[in-house]
Amino acid sequence: MPRDTSTRAGRRASRGAGLHQLPWRNLRNPYKPIEVLAEEQIVEIENASFDILERHGMELLHEEAVALVESAGAELDGNRARFDRSVIRHWVSQTPSEFTLHARNPEHNLTVGGNHLNLATVGSAPNVSDLDGGRRPGNFEDFSNLVRLAQAFNAVHMLGGYPVEPIDLPAPTRHLDAVATMVRLSDKVPYAYALGEVRMADGLEIIRIGRGVSPEQFAREPSTFTVVNTNSPLRLDGPMLGGLMTAARLGQPVVVTPFTLAGAMAPASVAGALALQNAEALAGLAIVQMASPGAPAMYGGFTSNVDMRSGAPAFGTPEYTKAALIGGQLARRYRIPYRSSNANAANSVDAQAAYESQMSIWGATMGHVNLMLHGFGWMEGGLVASFEKFVLDVEMLQMMGEFLTPLRIDSDELAVDAIGEVGPGGHFFGSQHTLDRYETAFYAPIISNWQNFENWQLAGAVTADRKANQIWKQVLAEFEPPPLEGAVAAELEDFVERRRRQGGFTG
Amino acid sequence: MPRDTSTRAGRRASRGAGLHQLPWRNLRNPYKPIEVLAEEQIVEIENASFDILERHGMELLHEEAVALVESAGAELDGNRARFDRSVIRHWVSQTPSEFTLHARNPEHNLTVGGNHLNLATVGSAPNVSDLDGGRRPGNFEDFSNLVRLAQAFNAVHMLGGYPVEPIDLPAPTRHLDAVATMVRLSDKVPYAYALGEVRMADGLEIIRIGRGVSPEQFAREPSTFTVVNTNSPLRLDGPMLGGLMTAARLGQPVVVTPFTLAGAMAPASVAGALALQNAEALAGLAIVQMASPGAPAMYGGFTSNVDMRSGAPAFGTPEYTKAALIGGQLARRYRIPYRSSNANAANSVDAQAAYESQMSIWGATMGHVNLMLHGFGWMEGGLVASFEKFVLDVEMLQMMGEFLTPLRIDSDELAVDAIGEVGPGGHFFGSQHTLDRYETAFYAPIISNWQNFENWQLAGAVTADRKANQIWKQVLAEFEPPPLEGAVAAELEDFVERRRRQGGFTG
Repeated sequence: MPRDTSTRAGRRASRGAGLHQLPWRNLRNPYKPIEVLAEEQIVEIENASFDILERHGMELLHEEAVALVESAGAELDGNRARFDRSVIRHWVSQTPSEFTLHARNPEHNLTVGGNHLNLATVGSAPNVSDLDGGRRPGNFEDFSNLVRLAQAFNAVHMLGGYPVEPIDLPAPTRHLDAVATMVRLSDKVPYAYALGEVRMADGLEIIRIGRGVSPEQFAREPSTFTVVNTNSPLRLDGPMLGGLMTAARLGQPVVVTPFTLAGAMAPASVAGALALQNAEALAGLAIVQMASPGAPAMYGGFTSNVDMRSGAPAFGTPEYTKAALIGGQLARRYRIPYRSSNANAANSVDAQAAYESQMSIWGATMGHVNLMLHGFGWMEGGLVASFEKFVLDVEMLQMMGEFLTPLRIDSDELAVDAIGEVGPGGHFFGSQHTLDRYETAFYAPIISNWQNFENWQLAGAVTADRKANQIWKQVLAEFEPPPLEGAVAAELEDFVERRRRQGGFTG
Repeated sequence: MPRDTSTRAGRRASRGAGLHQLPWRNLRNPYKPIEVLAEEQIVEIENASFDILERHGMELLHEEAVALVESAGAELDGNRARFDRSVIRHWVSQTPSEFTLHARNPEHNLTVGGNHLNLATVGSAPNVSDLDGGRRPGNFEDFSNLVRLAQAFNAVHMLGGYPVEPIDLPAPTRHLDAVATMVRLSDKVPYAYALGEVRMADGLEIIRIGRGVSPEQFAREPSTFTVVNTNSPLRLDGPMLGGLMTAARLGQPVVVTPFTLAGAMAPASVAGALALQNAEALAGLAIVQMASPGAPAMYGGFTSNVDMRSGAPAFGTPEYTKAALIGGQLARRYRIPYRSSNANAANSVDAQAAYESQMSIWGATMGHVNLMLHGFGWMEGGLVASFEKFVLDVEMLQMMGEFLTPLRIDSDELAVDAIGEVGPGGHFFGSQHTLDRYETAFYAPIISNWQNFENWQLAGAVTADRKANQIWKQVLAEFEPPPLEGAVAAELEDFVERRRRQGGFTG
């Protein structure tokens, strides 16, 4: 399907899969970030995080990692590592401030850093949901369909994990089938999990094969990323550390994301949760550099708060939005690319799902996030990947993309002459100035209904969630996988089969 | 009901009407505004708007206004007035950059200007809607109930018009009953319409009586405001101009708001619509100062776009958000308080209603709007006042208010010691640091449901719109009108009855 993204007309010409969506494009945020805190307050948070690492340290549940950090300057007390701030600064400062993510289709390459904004799908949901089938445990069919949506919607830049866990696949070989399926069904940047050395290495090998590049080129060219969550407070577990070191040594970006839910795994204050986030993020980022100096990495922010009455996690709260923006201030302080999320805690694709997501999206966007994880389909605080929410997020993030597109200000657009021609009390419906812009003037939504109430009722009173339901079914029905070279497909098949015969992951 | 707003505990102590809402508070936006355009681009828009006023001028459908602008320096051609930029600059620069709005309850006074953010209800909807009664034409009972909600919800700072048009009241005396009802049922800043000299003066007199102040004090103390819409393009009609001059001469703020829908009453380009908006706003603001130098006024921005395929107006679009932010840049250029709106075009209280509103709210807030009109209850591009949307907006704007509340950063909040006490892999549920903050740490929502899916289902799977429905019915059931001094009530009654006997508005 030919596509012209170089003209304004191209912005609306992309009717892939019969859907009137915007074409693929890389996003940049031309506006200054919102700064919630003054410089000296950022320094206070930083100092608190250094105090945490010097006084309390981090527990590292991985023998090799313990030896690594000791040789790199940490003080050890069993598996508790304490880091002087000079040690942290020394290692963290070696993180690149920008890198390119290479997709198997080079048109889907991404720049990570600066004011670049990349949008990823939901990752790691244990359940899946849609209006027809209801809520059910994750499975391979839904996994595959969500990967298809990721490929079909131009707003999606990359995969952000297994969109839903395919628990019907056998555990030892699940990672092989899951990553290979991402590579087969999508030519965008895929994802592999940092679940120990073996699965990390398997996933990266599949992605390398998918790109059709040599191990040397793969190590030079970041082609995926993996999230390493700390077990807040102050712990990094073995599988995560193993995956972290493996990815770093293979040149693939590690996104270090502390799981600092204020009031549960972090103090019941935004400031305290951020101090802990910053401490754990810096420790993880330092370990990435200790394992492989100069390896690409990202600063992950996931700070939110719990409902103090029930302990339930909340997302898209005012506290969450502040934390997302402050996380950006901290990441920029270290000149490290920043990751945040499009999060919400809603149980249905209703107004709550939309306003909590919007609070998250605005926090991430105006925090100059470089990777918005869980951008499409995340609900229930991550417990569900929703097909309808996926489409809703496409609409909301296409709108944000348009908002970030610079406005043209010139005499043609300012239309002083056209205003004179129309004159007092007239209208612009038929004016030449309007006719010249008829097709391309404004964002054309995929969900939003602007009919008047009577016509909307006559057409079935379709609410946003039901419209989203219609759209994803249409997109799946018309889906065609991107081309994959025969030799690459064969090598992929060979690798997966060989590893399957070996039993897959047996750790 | 006693209320303590001076402590953090007070932030959650206000359980008025059984509802767990935040207490009344005045809002300020501590963050820098988002600037969509560079300074030189703002100058380009300004120059285009001056060109429009110099070359095309404005049609003024009011004899006295025509004479007024001629004596103040405009060039006349029939009722078409052309304004040299020096004339516009001379008059507009006399607009105060900040003023206080005095409510009949001084605790509800508002500062308009600087970084103060004031939130008003929906105004002027012809229809009203709720989940029980459906959509119906405006009427006095619904009007009164919406005024009760405006009084009961602390997030509402003021009335923003008749929340719905009470079309069952006789037209000649409707304005008397409507304004008097606002004054009786609410002690917040009420609203009167600029529908010609007579109704404007009647409304202001009722508001003066409600405050219990002399005409002289009333003229010194802005106590309401009125919106003057231009008939874009380039026309100001007679009733609006009559109301404008009457309000200005009585010292009451005029909000000049061009109705610049790009693609309909304005060019099909954001730049052109903003050039027209700025031209018409500046002309109106100049006329306010010509009528009464130094009179308070506001710069109103309402620029949005239509759906180019159907001509239907759209709100909360990416173009709308940009226009709201640029409107703020223009208003700040003239140091004049700024008005924008919480707008959307949705037909039901669904995800679309929420995300379009969020795009509007973020545009207004980060544009440093001083008056967010249609803050509560506006839907369908203004054709409906919705009870459920009203409550949804309370939630969304309470969240925004919390987002604007500065974060405390000190050693107590940073919690380095508490983090050490909990240690690796522990949790903060029972720590003293948490217990000290249990009640007040985080925003407690009125609608958002954070239960897990199973419990949410067991509790009836209540979606956000249905939860909002429960809340407004509860609030109305428990409503008590604010006290009104007997003498004031009697004078109010006397005035309304006298004017009723005179036939009300017979123009």
